[in-house]
Amino acid sequence: MEPTKRVLSVQSHVVHGYVGNKAATFPLQLLGWDVDAINTVQFSNHAGYRSHGGSKTDKGQLIDIFTILEKNEFTQIDALISGYVPGADGLTALADFAAHLKAKNPKLLFVLDPVMGDDGKMYVANDVLPIYRDRLLPLATVITPNWFEVELMTQIQLTSQDSIRLALRSLHFNHGVRNVVVTSVVVREGSQLSDEVTAAGLRAGSSYSINGASYAINFEDEYILCIASSAHEDPSVAPDVYALAAPRIKGYFSGVGDLFSALVLAHFHEAQHANTDGSPPATTLSISPLAQAASRAFYTTHAVLRRTQKHALALAAQSSEDPSSSNAYTDDELDAREPLRRVRRMRTRELRIVQSRNDIIAANNGSIEAMRAWEGFWG
Amino acid sequence: MEPTKRVLSVQSHVVHGYVGNKAATFPLQLLGWDVDAINTVQFSNHAGYRSHGGSKTDKGQLIDIFTILEKNEFTQIDALISGYVPGADGLTALADFAAHLKAKNPKLLFVLDPVMGDDGKMYVANDVLPIYRDRLLPLATVITPNWFEVELMTQIQLTSQDSIRLALRSLHFNHGVRNVVVTSVVVREGSQLSDEVTAAGLRAGSSYSINGASYAINFEDEYILCIASSAHEDPSVAPDVYALAAPRIKGYFSGVGDLFSALVLAHFHEAQHANTDGSPPATTLSISPLAQAASRAFYTTHAVLRRTQKHALALAAQSSEDPSSSNAYTDDELDAREPLRRVRRMRTRELRIVQSRNDIIAANNGSIEAMRAWEGFWG
Repeated sequence: MEPTKRVLSVQSHVVHGYVGNKAATFPLQLLGWDVDAINTVQFSNHAGYRSHGGSKTDKGQLIDIFTILEKNEFTQIDALISGYVPGADGLTALADFAAHLKAKNPKLLFVLDPVMGDDGKMYVANDVLPIYRDRLLPLATVITPNWFEVELMTQIQLTSQDSIRLALRSLHFNHGVRNVVVTSVVVREGSQLSDEVTAAGLRAGSSYSINGASYAINFEDEYILCIASSAHEDPSVAPDVYALAAPRIKGYFSGVGDLFSALVLAHFHEAQHANTDGSPPATTLSISPLAQAASRAFYTTHAVLRRTQKHALALAAQSSEDPSSSNAYTDDELDAREPLRRVRRMRTRELRIVQSRNDIIAANNGSIEAMRAWEGFWG
Repeated sequence: MEPTKRVLSVQSHVVHGYVGNKAATFPLQLLGWDVDAINTVQFSNHAGYRSHGGSKTDKGQLIDIFTILEKNEFTQIDALISGYVPGADGLTALADFAAHLKAKNPKLLFVLDPVMGDDGKMYVANDVLPIYRDRLLPLATVITPNWFEVELMTQIQLTSQDSIRLALRSLHFNHGVRNVVVTSVVVREGSQLSDEVTAAGLRAGSSYSINGASYAINFEDEYILCIASSAHEDPSVAPDVYALAAPRIKGYFSGVGDLFSALVLAHFHEAQHANTDGSPPATTLSISPLAQAASRAFYTTHAVLRRTQKHALALAAQSSEDPSSSNAYTDDELDAREPLRRVRRMRTRELRIVQSRNDIIAANNGSIEAMRAWEGFWG
């Protein structure tokens, strides 16, 4: 009989599309997890559409749910994952509950995605930052911030290997986080970081293998660098740092971080579990458990994004819009004339997660592009 | 590229366990559906646990979500499914919205589960009954009531073939429902209905084949009869009635109807779709599309229930409870001494849906026990 693996996932819910729990739950279930899902909001769609209906789950409702989960002994869980929680009040309630769960079970796997912003813009209020930094970071087993969230938490700009080193040191040693995955450092061709990444041999190959099919990667002028850093119990041993840079898939897609974090959880648990009982999983990569998890998450996320981009382009090609007008005006100008134009574009970019079922499962079996040890990272 | 199939599902949400959208969404996604999920409540768990936390989505919030779904053109859907909606207010809002969707697209597949009660007990207020009967039934493509809900809607007790005939006639011709699946008529050995079911040859064989493995069925003193009845466009042609009786799996499991209805939707859509484009699916059963859908839904639900029951029994065997005290007292007496005893028992009976991934997919491919035409049903 298949054993029960149970995760409590505290994230947003949207009726249409894939962010928060909608992006996290299905992949986790597909990988065999029972997902106890607390929805921190119920919105018709993500905020990128400009208009949405629905409501937030307030602090009182969250505490009410936490209390009954405890009372009914539903807190016998293998893992906890948190994403977007609106407002400092709700986040404080989550921090209190997470602290309680960790006190009961110090080995609880807690994957924290400190959702604060992206692309240099904060989309939560300023007062959540200290709660993430001071209350939640010390409780987390793994954190999965994007580059901007690392900058917010550490106040260090990620422009070079030097600055990344400083930021990781701060997260590991000032904030007490054992495992850090930085999900999307943008690397521009010709920058200092680009030179350093190239010199360290951290670029993905010229093709990606998904489900036996090989996809060529068109090298362009931007890369996404993903970094996995694990500190050792003995602080005098330098953390293990792995990284991989892959061409950036153009276009803005929502929910990618939520999908990625959920996959890191599933694959990290599996890698750890294999280490614990001594028998390695069928295809262990000879890298750290965190790097293995991040590699698999990266692989699946890439497959989902490729499929989503292909779908969006196919729909755009079918659309009735006069291509000459598209060329003559910017998207913002055309959107202003026709408000639904933006909505329609966003809609085609909802992640094709359901259609990626095989790729989600294949990450455990397929031959994937693994992250590489960042030699000489600590200098 | 896999085509998009999109369903809007309006049901309850529980953090822990599997009822409502938690029971419906994963199987639909596994069968390739994008599920737009509106949660009519967010509770920590289903009501059978006695205590729960969380809140209901009120009428204003539902209308707010419906309005934005329409505005952002998310209502280009292939199907609508509804389950538990608390209160007459919210149900009226759903009826208004469903009427609007059907007016825009008369071919919309609307699977209505008129959730009002089970086992002879109503668990919604009396004032929802007329809304189901007068507003929602005429809009539905398929309804999936249990026997008690049929009795509530038709005011006919289902004790014999005669009474079932009267009830189906009422649903088809007085209430305008084209397709009816009655999910769980309890047939007691030695009753009039039992004799009629046996005479009509509607009993399932002595084993069930699931994923290539064969499971023996232990005939006991109760059967569950599932009936699928489809009316023709020409009302002078008698509806096609199919049925199958299988041994009842003992124990009370929540969410079974929600799971079953979702599966009927997926398999009915596929059967219809195959009929429309002329090319039959790989393994078409030579029965009506509704009976095919109900057979597949029955097969998967049975597999999930068997797995759940096995799991519950395995956990009970491990429990520390003194077996002699279990024998000496009733469950109610033991529960009264130790309130968490009931909670623990309920918890082990949460549907093993995630662990049944292969059975959910296999219903389309495996050899399943098909429903049989109920010869001479109309007399």
